[in-house]
Formats: sequence, structure tokens, C-alpha cells
Amino acid sequence: MIVVIETGTPAQEIQRITQELERLNITPEQIVGNHKVVIGLVGDTAAINPQQIQQLSPSIEQVLRVKQPFKRAALEFRYGQPSEVFVETPSGFVAFGQNRPIVQVAGPCSVENEEMIVQTAQRVKAAGAKFLRGGAYKPRTSPYAFQGHGESALSLLATARQETGLGIVTEVMDTADLQKVARIADIIQIGTRNMQNFSLLRKVGAIGKPVLLKRGMSATIEEWLMAAEYILATGNPNVILCERGIRSFDRQYARNTLDLGAIPVLRTLTHLPIMIDPSHGIGKAEYVPAMALAAIAAGADSLMIEVHPNPAKALSDGPQSLTPQQYDELMQQMAVIGQAVGRWSQHFPISTVDCTSQKHQAKQEICDQTITAMIFRK
Amino acid sequence: MIVVIETGTPAQEIQRITQELERLNITPEQIVGNHKVVIGLVGDTAAINPQQIQQLSPSIEQVLRVKQPFKRAALEFRYGQPSEVFVETPSGFVAFGQNRPIVQVAGPCSVENEEMIVQTAQRVKAAGAKFLRGGAYKPRTSPYAFQGHGESALSLLATARQETGLGIVTEVMDTADLQKVARIADIIQIGTRNMQNFSLLRKVGAIGKPVLLKRGMSATIEEWLMAAEYILATGNPNVILCERGIRSFDRQYARNTLDLGAIPVLRTLTHLPIMIDPSHGIGKAEYVPAMALAAIAAGADSLMIEVHPNPAKALSDGPQSLTPQQYDELMQQMAVIGQAVGRWSQHFPISTVDCTSQKHQAKQEICDQTITAMIFRK
Amino acid sequence: MIVVIETGTPAQEIQRITQELERLNITPEQIVGNHKVVIGLVGDTAAINPQQIQQLSPSIEQVLRVKQPFKRAALEFRYGQPSEVFVETPSGFVAFGQNRPIVQVAGPCSVENEEMIVQTAQRVKAAGAKFLRGGAYKPRTSPYAFQGHGESALSLLATARQETGLGIVTEVMDTADLQKVARIADIIQIGTRNMQNFSLLRKVGAIGKPVLLKRGMSATIEEWLMAAEYILATGNPNVILCERGIRSFDRQYARNTLDLGAIPVLRTLTHLPIMIDPSHGIGKAEYVPAMALAAIAAGADSLMIEVHPNPAKALSDGPQSLTPQQYDELMQQMAVIGQAVGRWSQHFPISTVDCTSQKHQAKQEICDQTITAMIFRK
Amino acid sequence: MIVVIETGTPAQEIQRITQELERLNITPEQIVGNHKVVIGLVGDTAAINPQQIQQLSPSIEQVLRVKQPFKRAALEFRYGQPSEVFVETPSGFVAFGQNRPIVQVAGPCSVENEEMIVQTAQRVKAAGAKFLRGGAYKPRTSPYAFQGHGESALSLLATARQETGLGIVTEVMDTADLQKVARIADIIQIGTRNMQNFSLLRKVGAIGKPVLLKRGMSATIEEWLMAAEYILATGNPNVILCERGIRSFDRQYARNTLDLGAIPVLRTLTHLPIMIDPSHGIGKAEYVPAMALAAIAAGADSLMIEVHPNPAKALSDGPQSLTPQQYDELMQQMAVIGQAVGRWSQHFPISTVDCTSQKHQAKQEICDQTITAMIFRK
Repeated sequence: MIVVIETGTPAQEIQRITQELERLNITPEQIVGNHKVVIGLVGDTAAINPQQIQQLSPSIEQVLRVKQPFKRAALEFRYGQPSEVFVETPSGFVAFGQNRPIVQVAGPCSVENEEMIVQTAQRVKAAGAKFLRGGAYKPRTSPYAFQGHGESALSLLATARQETGLGIVTEVMDTADLQKVARIADIIQIGTRNMQNFSLLRKVGAIGKPVLLKRGMSATIEEWLMAAEYILATGNPNVILCERGIRSFDRQYARNTLDLGAIPVLRTLTHLPIMIDPSHGIGKAEYVPAMALAAIAAGADSLMIEVHPNPAKALSDGPQSLTPQQYDELMQQMAVIGQAVGRWSQHFPISTVDCTSQKHQAKQEICDQTITAMIFRK
Repeated sequence: MIVVIETGTPAQEIQRITQELERLNITPEQIVGNHKVVIGLVGDTAAINPQQIQQLSPSIEQVLRVKQPFKRAALEFRYGQPSEVFVETPSGFVAFGQNRPIVQVAGPCSVENEEMIVQTAQRVKAAGAKFLRGGAYKPRTSPYAFQGHGESALSLLATARQETGLGIVTEVMDTADLQKVARIADIIQIGTRNMQNFSLLRKVGAIGKPVLLKRGMSATIEEWLMAAEYILATGNPNVILCERGIRSFDRQYARNTLDLGAIPVLRTLTHLPIMIDPSHGIGKAEYVPAMALAAIAAGADSLMIEVHPNPAKALSDGPQSLTPQQYDELMQQMAVIGQAVGRWSQHFPISTVDCTSQKHQAKQEICDQTITAMIFRK
Repeated sequence: MIVVIETGTPAQEIQRITQELERLNITPEQIVGNHKVVIGLVGDTAAINPQQIQQLSPSIEQVLRVKQPFKRAALEFRYGQPSEVFVETPSGFVAFGQNRPIVQVAGPCSVENEEMIVQTAQRVKAAGAKFLRGGAYKPRTSPYAFQGHGESALSLLATARQETGLGIVTEVMDTADLQKVARIADIIQIGTRNMQNFSLLRKVGAIGKPVLLKRGMSATIEEWLMAAEYILATGNPNVILCERGIRSFDRQYARNTLDLGAIPVLRTLTHLPIMIDPSHGIGKAEYVPAMALAAIAAGADSLMIEVHPNPAKALSDGPQSLTPQQYDELMQQMAVIGQAVGRWSQHFPISTVDCTSQKHQAKQEICDQTITAMIFRK
Repeated sequence: MIVVIETGTPAQEIQRITQELERLNITPEQIVGNHKVVIGLVGDTAAINPQQIQQLSPSIEQVLRVKQPFKRAALEFRYGQPSEVFVETPSGFVAFGQNRPIVQVAGPCSVENEEMIVQTAQRVKAAGAKFLRGGAYKPRTSPYAFQGHGESALSLLATARQETGLGIVTEVMDTADLQKVARIADIIQIGTRNMQNFSLLRKVGAIGKPVLLKRGMSATIEEWLMAAEYILATGNPNVILCERGIRSFDRQYARNTLDLGAIPVLRTLTHLPIMIDPSHGIGKAEYVPAMALAAIAAGADSLMIEVHPNPAKALSDGPQSLTPQQYDELMQQMAVIGQAVGRWSQHFPISTVDCTSQKHQAKQEICDQTITAMIFRK
């Protein structure tokens, strides 16, 4: 349920309405959009009569129920306003969102040793990536396959983070490892196979750090958004959705079917930022560039690409990894498309914070640095 | 890798071979089949030269590598001998396996209250079920949907168990709940959404209790067997596979596509017992009986069917639940097919134990009560 | 739209109502059920006011619109009464329907030469089949693969028909061959790849011979029934639906996923008889028996099974063909399940005709020979 | 099988080799690439010994077997050289191929009346389209739905062609209509449901006109190329592949899953040009632009987009049709991406002919007008 406030309502009155709403045993969340302030109501709203709320103030323009089964993830919940996820990295804040430059995440499937991870981090940073991906805990089909170096890999990621200033994205598979992972990761990844591991979703959400939620192999869009809702329901608004290929009837050449159609569909359903992982999505290095470019043209907010210094010798997912040089070349091609759609910037606007969120209001002063709305994406 | 022993080799020599094998830093597991004794080798067998083992004794007939990516789950690993899972219940041991009567598991999706669970337990027991299913922790698509009564539901299951003597099958979703669940459950269920939650697989396996492993919604047969391998690799051989419907392009009428073809396919790949869940598999009560009968004809070792005293008011999965009376009727129909295929018994042979496993050798004396091989299934 | 007639209405009055209906520019079709006579209205019924029809006679109990997008295929159109398809063979009429014994169809994928087809025909007849299947025109993925012997294969089928008295089921792929195929075939098959070849559907329908309509590889149940509707709309009521496996994400072991769930689903939607083809459905000879038995238990009205004298040398689909001996053995197993469900008969009731259809009313005298309703299938 | 000729071999010697090859009862096809001349051998090459051919001339560099099951469709068959399909339209030749500007095809699902089709044609031409699409014969799921205006629609397409100079793309469903369709169509479309209607493929191929082959709803890439092979095997090299969305497990929001990954995959397998149909591919007008842009970035050679003057009143597929104004806007966005990838041209190079094909060698003089190789696509 959302409460739309009349344009021009003084902050004091909004404050008063919020306090009144709190008395109804629901949690009000203020969302400051470009044109409107709305208050999202979280909790057992089924029992609440919209008319009762309407009467709280003449400054209430409308009281609307969110029709979708996902509530906080719904675009309606933010009255059509896209959300932005701000991630703190050693080099400053990086913003994921529809009105932000495309954020590049790159790195190997697994962290193998210090040299390889630091070297890869340096290369992808030089190419323009803002985040390093790398697996410490690897979900592998076989119990006998390499399962990741675990805790020691986490410290290597910490080293790479310190050396390069890149943010770290890494996966957690087990709630027992959550604290360790959260100490190192700037974004905690929930993998495809755990998209509906609801216990994990709740516990990762409760940590409060930004969460990257990969789509399950045969998850419908609705199931995916419901999984996001599990995280959002913990009060953590920092969820990034990542499409990484779905399972179809044909796996002879491509490992998965990258569902780029999810981008425009999600845009009509949710305010959350969207990342595309073309590496898993198609599963062969030679096919990755075409899909990365397509993802940008389709409107992705971020890309995650596997890069390994020596794919032929990778401990996992070698066939779908680019070499650093291939990544350099792809980045140049991506820049061409990224510029064409108005979402590429040489000088990435670090430092911006979420001006619409209460949390960061202290940093309000730097809000004016946010880049202006993109012409192309309207 | 398996070591096939010559027929007629004295137990002493087999013992000696086993000790020699242990020196190679691998774990030998003895499998006593109808015709042969074989020793399965577990561990890093890649480095071992089969010829080196061959030379350990002239009583070694053959040394074979398991070609499948799943090793202990492979039919080859048991030299073609089906395995049996013996589950201890208040009424004695119940055996799951190809040469055993079909084991019936029934009950509601969720445990709602004492009256409903005890009543349902009594009804399904009267109809011939050996196990009560009932969810205490429910994996639900929505965070706002009923999530199961948790711990209090577990005690209600304990009550139903005591009252009826039925074994209990219930799901664990979170490693944090594992001890609590394991105290009550005779078989611990790993649900569809967690089939590749590898941390959970390992921890549940390590508990040592029988595990029911449901197939993931779009898991291939191979991925499913690899998930079973995660459990088997902990040293727990008591895994039952449960097909519960896969995801296909058509969900207009049926919720899922029940893949009964998995039964003959699995028979050529694995020795593990197979359960079919037609309730989730097709998702509407009126379609369940046809699929239950088909499952028996196709060779299922066990069936799991949702039964609820009042499906219209069920807190979850009502539309696919039978009433106790419908279950009675279905049981009569199942008896007809079960008898036709020679796998139905009025007087269920409780008390039998796994004669092929070292663990239960103390109870060897009751081994002769096992029913004789089925003519029909050859 | 259907007009339900009051029980006990004299034939004369029904006749009068029918004539009145004809004046409305729609075609009335009389359906005589066990308890009721209903008149199905075919044509542009959207414009017709049900009340206007109601007023035609006090003997009209109800006027109902068929809610499904498929009209004549809908179970509603026959007021819940299953239809029966009667096929004339050299040995008399064979009936396909829910209250009839299961009809066995068997034979090779392709007709290869006279010896093999006649021999196979003799073997499958001896085993209990009523129809010989055999391809003269083969839809092959590759233009360079064997495409069937065409017209000469048709004459070999004619020979086999004459020698054995079996009915013939063979596929037509091209409207140009339709006349030739129709001269030989007792049932004309429309293959999976042509399920939505609407021109072919219409032209085959117009021939008037019974049609076997295989389900498309990824056709939904609704699309399949709509394809049947194309045939029914030509005025030809003799359509048999054949499930032959759908395409899913896993084809590593089984060629297709046999959707036996289609049986109970179809029973709630349509009156048409249902055949199952486990050979294409699962695609490997060793898996076929389990699926054939399951199909019978699930309620199939007919089975189509590939049998080849020498599968290893078959020109097409060898891996999924049984040898005649394997077919004999399977038939014995099928008999066990068929008897259990009350749909097997040593002495197949040839000679019965469709007593509910106007067409065959001349043969009314033999209608009393129809077997009585099956207890099991209710 | 292909015969690679040494660079610098005189035309006379190539001619002689060709004649020698003809004596072997196979059909040699000369392919003039950028760097090499190769001779493709068509027919029963299995029996031919490569060494025997090698000995025909010292100018033969290599004799290679095509390893793919599709032969003429294989990239190997043209020694890696992409093919180009030249279509004659009233405004001159239009080329489809990897080194050509992206060809735009647009128009309504069905031809409804003269005004709508001519008007739409004028609008899409003004926007930059080179071809008008429009259905005269429509494959509809329901026999009671609008089936297209047939022959009269064909004459309306002829009128629109004459009025605007656009080429015409229209579907044929029935071999009986083939001559009529071929008289009007510049490109004959084979629809999704007929992709494996092998009789139709052969007959359409034999007409010799360019063929647009849509991918079947659940056709694998290999099956699709095998279907193309049916056309190519008639000697007609002018095949364009069209991806139009595949069937997946999720159809709640998008009608189909547009498989853009097919583009890079096909590039490694075949030389044939690739068209993308985002309208059917995703099935809702608001999602079409994102997918059209993505298709261009992924490397599509052509786009087919549904445009209707009044989508809300369209006789078929209204929800996925753009208005002419939306198409104008999309064309502007496509131009941005098209220019970025170097495949957009204000002044479309009409008049170019296939310089690599013998057929058009007479028109060699205009070959130098072909646009230069694209830097971006390398």
C-alpha cells in the first residue's frame, strides 16, 4: 500500500502523516521521487482501510494498494521511480540504477591464488571495471570438483581490493560463512542455485549490505521478484537483480539461453537495478561479446563478465572466460554502444549518494553531483 | 573404482584385500550382492593404477573404473545391485527398494494443528501408509505467505508419530534447524528448491539419517544424481530420490510435468530407490490418481501423496490434496496395480534389515524374511 | 453452444427442434449420451441468443455456451459423454474410446521391404495388435536421410493389410499425397511436425477417414485441442489424439519427456480418445516397457509401439524399436495391467459401431454388442 | 565436401577441375571468397575418396569434409565466407548479409484492406524500411479466428508494392497457394509452425525466390539449420534465417523468449544472413524497442517489426504491433545503435549484386559499389 502526498506539502506535514501511520502498526517508508513524495506502507496492510488513511490529512492525494504479489519490489511501490543502489568501495560510492552509467563487474569464476587475482583485478580495473568478481565458495555440480578456496580466497579478495580500490562481489552459499563473506564483500552474491534458498535470502538481507540476486535456472520473472522481496522484507533495499541465462530445450552450442527480454519486462514491474551476466548466460567466450553489447542496448544497468588470465587453465568455467586482452577489446566495443545509449562515462561519477533515501541524507550536499537524466533512456 | 571379488573367495581374504586397500589412502566399501562381493573405492582414485590393485590378490576378478560423473550413486558402483534404504519407525523397519513392496507416504502439505495432523495420520495409516509427511518449515514463493509453524509443528509431528506408529518425513530448509528436524524426522526431506543447496546436502548427509532428495524444478537427471552424490559422499548411503514434476512450457492445466520417464532412466544409472510425488507432480487433486497408478506401473518404489482433511481450507497446496476418503479410494486402485506388478503386500514385511550392509550385519538373522525377487520387475 | 433435451422427449420432438435450429443458419449435431440427448450447434453461434433457442420447445432443458476456445473438441460439447472412434479394418470395426479395450498399434518406423513389413505385421498381429503402423513418407530432420519409400511403401502396407487383416496407420506429410495415402490407410496420421500445418489438417479432415493427431513437440494442451478442432470443424468427428513426448530441458538419456499427465488433463477437457506413443515418447527401447505400462495405468485408450525385426539395422528410429520378441513380452506385461484396469479383452469385440452417431445408425443392430462400462474407469 | 583451390590458380584450371568433378556424379558449386576460391561438392559424397579428388590437379590445396550434419548451410561449406542474399525489389536490389547495412522489414501482421496496407507501407518506407511484411494467409491457432484475406490480400500487397517500391515479404502455408504467393512476394516466408513441413520447404525452395525461414517454436539451432538445408538442397542458395522467439517455461509477461544468443552461435556455424523478429519474439509492443536495439548490437543483419496504423483494432497480433509513430521513434533509436556498429546507411546501397556468385556475374560491373567491410564486426 502506498500513500501519495500532494506536491508542495511541507516536510512537517509529511512527518506528521508518517507518525500517524506508525500508530497503525505498519512501517512507513518515505520515497522521494522526482515529482512526488510517496510513503510506502510495510506490514500487514490487508486489514487497513484505505479510506481511514485518506482521512489522516488533506495533503494525501491518493492511497493505493500494490496489486503485484511482490510489494516492495514493485514499481508501483515507488510510484514509478527507479531505485538506485549505492555501494561503498575503497574508491568511493558506485551507483547502480537506470539513470547511472553502466557499472562493469569483472573477474574470474574462482579465486585461485594471489598473483592471478591481483593481476586480474589490475587488468579489469585498467579496462574500466568498478568491481572485481571472484568466487571463494563455489557451488559445483560435483562434490568431487574444486569447491573454491573458501576463507583463504576471501583474504586474497581483500588483498586485491586494497591493491586496486575495486569493490568486491562474491557469493555466499552457507549462512555459516555469512559473517566472513560480509567482512570482505561490498556486494554479497546469492547464486542461481540458491535463489529460492529462503533462509539464506533472509539472513543475507538482514546483514544490510547490497545483495546481488541471480535468477534461478528456471525461475519465472515473478518468482525472481518474490525472492527479491524476501530480501527487501528484511528492510534492506539494496538489491540488484542479475539475469544469467535460463534453461531451455537447446544446450548443444550455448550453455544457457540469456533472456535479455527480462530487461524490458522488469522495467515495467520493478524499480530495482538490473545486471546481466553474459558469461554464464551463453557459456562460451566467443559468444560473450555479442551478448554483452546486446545487454547494453537492451538497457542493462550493469554487466558482470568473467575474465581469467589463462582461461585454458582455469579451475572452473574456463570456456566462458575472456582473457584480459579480450576484455579490453570488448570494453572498447561496449563503450561505443554505451555512449550511443548515453550511459557511458570516462570519468565515472564516484561520490554520489542516494539522495532519495533517508539513510544517506547526511551526505545530501553531494547529491547535486548526480549525473543528469539520460536522454536516450528517457 | 570398484574391485570385483571372485565368487567363493573366503571372507578372510576379502578382509585382507580390504586392509591392503586402506593403505592406499582410499576408503573401501564392501557391497554384498546376490552373486558377487564387490569393494567400492572412495576417495582420490584418479591417481591409482588399476593394475596395482589387481595384483593385491588372485581373488580379484576385475578392477573397474566408474565411468559416470556420479560415483557412489552409480549402478556400476554396486555392480548392478539395487540398494535398499531401511528406515526405522516406531512400528519397525521399513525398506525402500526395487525388490520391496511399494512404500506409501501421505499427509498434508503443512502441519496446521494437533487435531488435523493426528487425524490425518490415523486416516492415512488406516489406508495403508507407512509414513506421514507434513511440513513444519515451508519454502514459500512469497515472504508474506504462511511459512509453516516451525518448531511447534515438529512437536505435533512427534505426537502423531507416537499416536500412530507412522514414520515421519519432513523437510529441512536451514542448517540451523537441522538438529531439531533430525530429532523428529525418520526421513529428512531436502526440497526441490534446495536440491543444489550444496551446504545443506552435506550437513544433512552427515547426520546419517535417511534422506529424501527431491528433484530440482529443472534439474537434469545427471544434476540430480550429482546432488545425491553430495549426500553419499558424506558416507551416508541412505538416499531416496523423489521425482515431483519438472517445469515445462505448459502450465495452463497441470502445475508441473511429472517425468515418469525418469524411473526407467534412473534404473539404468543408479541403484538408489525412487519415490514419486504425483501431488506436486501434476498439482490438481483430480489428476493425482491417474499419475499415482502410472507411477506404480512404471516401477516406482514409493509414493508420496498429499492428503488433507479439508483441502478447501488448507493453509498451503489445498488444490492438490486429496481428502482422506479420496485417498482410501485411490489406495484401493493402487492395490490393484500394485498387486498386478507384484509389489503390494497386505502384511507389510516390517522388520527386515539391510543384509548387504555391514552396519546391520548383527541383525542378519532376520534377513531371510525379505520378500523374494519380483517376477514382474525381473 | 449446446442444447440439452429433457429426458424422455419423444424422437419426433427432437427432430422438430433440430429442424428449427437448421433455420438459424447453424448446423445441429445430435449427440446421444447414456442419459441425455444433446444437440451441438456448429457455426456462428456468437450472434445467437440462447433465450431465443430456449423458446423453441418446452423439451429444451438448457442452452449452454461452450466456454473453451475449442468447441467440438470440448467435453462440454458432448455434455460429458466420451466419444468413440470406430475404424473399419479388414477384420471388422475397431473402437477407440474410454469404455473400450485398449487398442494396440505396432510396427516399424518405416516400411523397408515386403518381407520385413509382412513379417512384422504377422508378429504384431499374433501378439494382439489391431493395427500396423509403418511410414511410407517420413519427416526426417535431414534432407539427406532416408525419406521413406513413398508410394511403393504404400502398396507394401496394402499387402500387409491383406495378409494379416490388420488396419493400417500411416502418416501423410503433403496434401499432394493425400489421396494415395487415404486409399491405403485406415487411420491417417498427422505427425508431430505438422500438428499446426493447418492446411493439411483441413484437407485430411475433409477426407472423412479417422485421423490420428500427434501432439506437436512443444504444443500446449490447448494448442493441440485447437489443432483437433481444425479437423473436427470439417465435419469429421473421428479424431484420436496421440501424445508422443514433449521437448524439455533434459535430453541426455531420454529423447523426449513423455507427458502422461496429459491423459487426466485431457479427460477433463475433451471427449476424444487418447493414444500414447511411448517409443517416440522416451526414445530408447529399454525404457519403452515401463512407459507403456504406465500409460495403461494412467488411462490411455490405445498404444502405439515401434517394433522392428532387426532394430540395429532399421533405416530409421532403430534405437527405440522393440524386437518382435520384446513386443510379445511387453504385451504379456501390458495384459496384466490392462486386466487390472478392466480394459483388456482376449476376444476383442470387433464389429461394434458408433451407436451415438447418425452415420452408423444403419448398423444399429450390432450396437448391443458394445462392452459394458468399465468398473475401474467409472 | 569442399575443394580448396590454391590462390592464383587460373580460371581455366578451376574450370577444368570443375568438369572433372562433374564426372564423379556430384554437383560442384563454385564459391568465390575474399581470399580463396573453393568448390563445394553436393551429392552423395560419402562414397568419394578425398585423395582421389586431390589428385585431379596440383592446384587443389585441400579437400575437406563438412563435419556438420548440415552441409550447404555450414560455414565450412563456404570456407568461412558469409553469404549474401540479394533480393530484387521495385527499387533495386537489396542485400542481406554480415557486411551489409541492416535491412528493415516492417508492416502489419495481416493485410486488412487497401487503405491500411498502403498507408502502412508508406509510413514504414518513409521511416527507412526496405520491405513490407503482411500476411495474406495466416496460421491461426483457432479454426474460427480470422485466417487472412488470402488471394485478395495478395493483390493489395501488389498494390502497396507498386505504390511504394517496397519489396514484399509474405507467408505461404500451403503448397497449393505457392504460385500465387510467389507472383507477389519478393521474399517468401515459411512460418514457425511450418519450419519442419518438409514438403513445403522443398517446394518453396524449388521456386528459386529468396526464402525467409522462421525458427520453429522449440527448434534447436541444429534442426533449424537442417530445415534450411532442405531449401538449399533444392539448389536455391537464398535463405535468410529468422529468430522469432522460442518457447520457455515463463510466458506470464512475454509471449516468447527471444533467443538473441542464436546470433553469435549461428555466426560460428553458418554463412546465412540472420533476421530478428522482436515483435513475435517478445510479444508486447512496449518491450519491442529494447529487443530491436539489442538485436542490432548482437549483430543481426535484418529486423522484422510489426507496425499497424491502429493496433487496438488489428485483426491479429495487435498487442505486439507498434504504431507508425512508435516505429519512427524506434527507427531513430535503431539508427543510433546501427551507426555505432557501423551498419547503418542513410543512402542505402541499392543496386549491389552478389559478386561472389556465378549467377550474377553478368552484373559484375556494379560490384564495386558494395560497402566496405565493417570495422566493428571484423
